[in-house]
Amino acid sequence: MGGDVGLKVTVPASVQFLSDTPDVNLVLVGDQAAIEAELMALPDSVRARITVRHASEVVGMDESPQLALKNKKDSSMRVSINLVKEGLAQAAVSAGNTGALMATAKFVLKTIPGIDRPAIAKMMPGIKGNTCVLDLGANVDCSPEQLLQFGIMGSELVVSLEHRPNPSVGLLNIGSEDIKGTESIKRAAELLRESGLNFYGNVEGNDIFKSTVDVVVCDGFTGNVALKASEGLAHMISTFLREEFARTWWTKLCALAAMPVLKRFKARVDPRRYNGASFLGLRGIVVKSHGGTDALGFRIALEQACEEVRANVIGHIADRVAVQLQNIRQSGPEAKDSA
Amino acid sequence: MGGDVGLKVTVPASVQFLSDTPDVNLVLVGDQAAIEAELMALPDSVRARITVRHASEVVGMDESPQLALKNKKDSSMRVSINLVKEGLAQAAVSAGNTGALMATAKFVLKTIPGIDRPAIAKMMPGIKGNTCVLDLGANVDCSPEQLLQFGIMGSELVVSLEHRPNPSVGLLNIGSEDIKGTESIKRAAELLRESGLNFYGNVEGNDIFKSTVDVVVCDGFTGNVALKASEGLAHMISTFLREEFARTWWTKLCALAAMPVLKRFKARVDPRRYNGASFLGLRGIVVKSHGGTDALGFRIALEQACEEVRANVIGHIADRVAVQLQNIRQSGPEAKDSA
Repeated sequence: MGGDVGLKVTVPASVQFLSDTPDVNLVLVGDQAAIEAELMALPDSVRARITVRHASEVVGMDESPQLALKNKKDSSMRVSINLVKEGLAQAAVSAGNTGALMATAKFVLKTIPGIDRPAIAKMMPGIKGNTCVLDLGANVDCSPEQLLQFGIMGSELVVSLEHRPNPSVGLLNIGSEDIKGTESIKRAAELLRESGLNFYGNVEGNDIFKSTVDVVVCDGFTGNVALKASEGLAHMISTFLREEFARTWWTKLCALAAMPVLKRFKARVDPRRYNGASFLGLRGIVVKSHGGTDALGFRIALEQACEEVRANVIGHIADRVAVQLQNIRQSGPEAKDSA
Repeated sequence: MGGDVGLKVTVPASVQFLSDTPDVNLVLVGDQAAIEAELMALPDSVRARITVRHASEVVGMDESPQLALKNKKDSSMRVSINLVKEGLAQAAVSAGNTGALMATAKFVLKTIPGIDRPAIAKMMPGIKGNTCVLDLGANVDCSPEQLLQFGIMGSELVVSLEHRPNPSVGLLNIGSEDIKGTESIKRAAELLRESGLNFYGNVEGNDIFKSTVDVVVCDGFTGNVALKASEGLAHMISTFLREEFARTWWTKLCALAAMPVLKRFKARVDPRRYNGASFLGLRGIVVKSHGGTDALGFRIALEQACEEVRANVIGHIADRVAVQLQNIRQSGPEAKDSA
């Protein structure tokens, strides 16, 4: 039901996803009558792989996460996440209210032992390949231990989605030297260095798009600002490019001639291709689609959830965190179990 | 002497600047013999407006700011800032080591009464006009009072450089609602709201490039990451665009046809046009040029320093902060003078 458009995006995306992915079934959760109406024209072979699960409520895009959690127990997002909790679905995908989705997922699914709080992770494009950045807004203040956990979770996500073994992890900072940054970040660097992860060291904002490392770890405040600043800049650049090609009849002719090139360029930076933010650290897979995306974007988010299930990303995170906890227990009396 | 190239950039930029700006003289500070060699071919009319001031040392681009401050008392940047302190120059412009320049400027010039610590501010391009963003890296942790001071300083810079009266000020956050962000940011929002500044409220990363407000206030960690992430993304996009147009003989032909359009586009996002970061809050004008810029970029930084002198930006900041301090003193016994 979620997102700026709702069923007109999520249903076509689901149908397309099912055609491309023969061994998966979908449960569509929301207003049964409205969903059924969208499914009318489907061939039986596709329709048979869709179950509709009624939910009487919808969380609004601007609703308070806490109120949604408290008052909307039959919302489409709550029911979807319940299905994951009950093992009736292997993943939930939503284009709805991010805060409410996170609050609900945390409340219903709980975190993996050893993970303090879940994080939002996303693959970002880079000159030589994608980089996973987390946290992108779930945690405003982060302890050094949380930043270490983000490193573990981001690594496992890269293994799962990008199939790169032993991903390198960078810590987002304002300089490459060890003396840079807050006390919390300096301590996080120490923890990451001792963790057994493939820790690269400090990275800076530009390294996100330089493909310097596979995973960039940061607190949710910094990550969110970096993500949104990048979205803002990309929008400005594409606006300027469009304006320049639309200026006169001559520039329009140039645009026509250059169209195939410009199309290929656009495809490389198409935000829909990078849609799908993973909520990591929970005992279930939840993927958040951008609310403003279209059917292609939502399909990409469905594919991402599917990849995470196939790769057993949660099992891998749990195993790695368990090893980490054991190391901390063995390393001395001051060590504490953060589970 | 500073920057990746040194005199081959700074001297041509200086000469060009003098030709364009008849009522200004320049003092070039550094290795006298090397500078004089660069000035050989100049016509007398320009040469007469240049004074060369010898400095026996140069701070390396990767040198420790504290060591540079302690050991290089005759460095070109130290001597330049001394000239400002002594009133023999109205502003200093350097393409050298940012940390060393800031440490030296702080030590020699001191801050304006009521300003806790200086900040680095820069005009960033936006869809409908430039936005001043600060702090961009001088202060990793910022108190609410400092963020308020950044708001005041950024406003006065916009008045001086952009000639916009009563600039609007946004507080960088991860959502527009008042409940978002850290405790420090929530308190800063209260201070800004009570300050008499034209406070807009919270803004997000994308607002920097949407021209939502004239000034975006943030701590130096977040600001630095946002700036560098933007630089990284801009570089990635221009690389992709170049690669697509260079792919085949046909796309190269398209590029040739579209060249005038692409040139106009590039000019709009040319980082040289946005070169020049102002160190605000000091009792003297210091402008930092990007170390990797060329003569055009360095000239823009010289022009920016010149504009700040003409507009008396320091006097205006001092006046506004004095009013602010008086308000705080009058508002209750718990108020403290942060000077």
